[in-house]
Amino acid sequence: MSPNAITKPKGFLAAGISCGIKISGKKDLALIYSQVPALGCGLFTSNKVKAAPLLVTAGHLRKGTVRAIVINSGNANCFTGKQGLVDAKKMSVVTANFLGINESEVLVASTGIIGKPMPMQKIIPGIKELCSRLSRARGKDAASAIRTTDTFSKEIAKSFKVGLKTVTIGAMAKGAGMIFPHLADSSHATMLCFIATDACIQIAALKAALKQAVEYSFNAISVDGCMSTNDMVLILANAAAKNKPIKINSQDYGKFCAGLTAVCKDLAKKIVLDAEGATKFIQIHIKGAHSAPEARQAAFAIANSNLFKTACFGENRNVGRVIAAVGAAGIPFNQQKASLRLSSLKSRFINLEVNLGQGKSESVVYTSDLSPAYVHINAGYS
Amino acid sequence: MSPNAITKPKGFLAAGISCGIKISGKKDLALIYSQVPALGCGLFTSNKVKAAPLLVTAGHLRKGTVRAIVINSGNANCFTGKQGLVDAKKMSVVTANFLGINESEVLVASTGIIGKPMPMQKIIPGIKELCSRLSRARGKDAASAIRTTDTFSKEIAKSFKVGLKTVTIGAMAKGAGMIFPHLADSSHATMLCFIATDACIQIAALKAALKQAVEYSFNAISVDGCMSTNDMVLILANAAAKNKPIKINSQDYGKFCAGLTAVCKDLAKKIVLDAEGATKFIQIHIKGAHSAPEARQAAFAIANSNLFKTACFGENRNVGRVIAAVGAAGIPFNQQKASLRLSSLKSRFINLEVNLGQGKSESVVYTSDLSPAYVHINAGYS
Repeated sequence: MSPNAITKPKGFLAAGISCGIKISGKKDLALIYSQVPALGCGLFTSNKVKAAPLLVTAGHLRKGTVRAIVINSGNANCFTGKQGLVDAKKMSVVTANFLGINESEVLVASTGIIGKPMPMQKIIPGIKELCSRLSRARGKDAASAIRTTDTFSKEIAKSFKVGLKTVTIGAMAKGAGMIFPHLADSSHATMLCFIATDACIQIAALKAALKQAVEYSFNAISVDGCMSTNDMVLILANAAAKNKPIKINSQDYGKFCAGLTAVCKDLAKKIVLDAEGATKFIQIHIKGAHSAPEARQAAFAIANSNLFKTACFGENRNVGRVIAAVGAAGIPFNQQKASLRLSSLKSRFINLEVNLGQGKSESVVYTSDLSPAYVHINAGYS
Repeated sequence: MSPNAITKPKGFLAAGISCGIKISGKKDLALIYSQVPALGCGLFTSNKVKAAPLLVTAGHLRKGTVRAIVINSGNANCFTGKQGLVDAKKMSVVTANFLGINESEVLVASTGIIGKPMPMQKIIPGIKELCSRLSRARGKDAASAIRTTDTFSKEIAKSFKVGLKTVTIGAMAKGAGMIFPHLADSSHATMLCFIATDACIQIAALKAALKQAVEYSFNAISVDGCMSTNDMVLILANAAAKNKPIKINSQDYGKFCAGLTAVCKDLAKKIVLDAEGATKFIQIHIKGAHSAPEARQAAFAIANSNLFKTACFGENRNVGRVIAAVGAAGIPFNQQKASLRLSSLKSRFINLEVNLGQGKSESVVYTSDLSPAYVHINAGYS
């Protein structure tokens, strides 16, 4: 883990404080700030219920450049009606006012309990304090402030050369439960990921790179098969590295895509490693499918099978549950043609490979086991 | 619970013994026998992987009348390759030989672990003993012998008048985990249900009545969202009540349908009541949907949400998880139009009603909570 991952790219500052949303007194308000206007784009949950901050953020992204992302944990601002929208907008307005920027330059994200009003009387003074603390040294505070049931902060930074210039991608993410993201252009688990880069890159290239990176990372994980109303991945690119602009399908674009995908994969895996109550990290590799979507459907049918997940927790080798899950996946399946390999269940890292024996497509997804601790965490969370 | 439910209709005998498939020494082999040839029909899992006995049974049902059903617990005879088919056939042949009937008159069902060879050296002598014990008094033994993780036997019998004659439907079922049946003409959880009736009824009417009864009972339950490879519901009608033949869409057919639906609903609810590790029985009623299938899809999205189920276990009122589950159900959903009512979580019986506010269709499904005990049972089961 890099020190201050989110503020490693040039021109980015951050802060994270406790404003009292969480009864525990832990940090619950974070801010990421670009010293110059940045291009921004995002992907959002495909849940039909989308939290208020997602609607506000998607609207602001359509308006132009971005300067800041304000994020709270402890309350999802979801299923909060019209007041929820008013509150999410207010968070952007207040942040913009303290920073002297436009409201539309501020993106908003929330995570936590669904269906409770936002404690704006705590959040507004919190934002003021947050703005006064912005610093390159406070990336770790921001990463900490977006956690809910996470047991550790998820951060990474990567640098590479574009021409003679060094370009850096720094990112932070949260997520441990309600994790089955299906991030799409329109807007699924609560996982949040914020990416900052000092790359100079065309907006079309930035969007395409983000989509590809998310497909192989956040869209390839499931903790509990429960899609959130608040998931989002946001990227800001502020061009502070002063590299030659990265155009889509260029060699530099390939480099940027690879870097961004590596960053997103690292964070997605960290979410699964920190899955609520988990004792195992499970990689499921489906081969020999007719198409990549069918391969992914089979992989998630296994990843979301409570019987497979409990067998992994119990280190109980029960391949029948894998077969039953694939058979129920809703894709063509012929058990005579299929084969599977399952590594030892004694290790923390388990590899399952299923060859459907039907075609040439494949998919890799990552999941966790299901333990009594998961039940206890979620029986008590509110 | 009626005494000897499965043998309450006239002309049916049963037996249940231990032949050593289960290491525990509990009963694991059951037989239902009709003293006269009976019409038979069945519905099977829609899992793409179907256990060997389902294939054998479906084949035999196409050949004509039925006299017996032989059932073992402790081994699902699934994912057992060609030998599995040979073994399932052998069970029917051996039973037929001891009873002096045709092989095609014997149906076969299995439940238990997937992917292990059948211990035929125990089953064959077991079938011989079973045949020698057939009696009207041994219905309870049969109901006990089909149990796996079930903590109680599931039985019921119902009688009603057809003309001047009393017609009886007796039934037994098993199931506690891997319960998410999608029973279809071709062939989902392991739940097994065997129904005997002394009604005289046309085969088309019997098939239609079974399909309708299953739709509102076994196809409306989920314990863990895991569809089995071995589910089946079989009904035998031996006409021993000597009533005037029941024709489809007649008034008597209506009575028979109502009786059969009540029997199947009773058993389906008992399966949910006995769900592995469950502490709650949850009824989910979706109203105001565009169509009944959409209503059911929404209902099962909630029923299969681990986050909703753990909240019920924890008696943790978290309606946000209901909303998030419906939003991820893959059906049109507008949170502004929706409303919901959730009864107290303190009771063993929980009622959830969600009105989608979109149309006039509805669906009711039954499920259980998710407890640490479910995890422990399935972490250890093999």
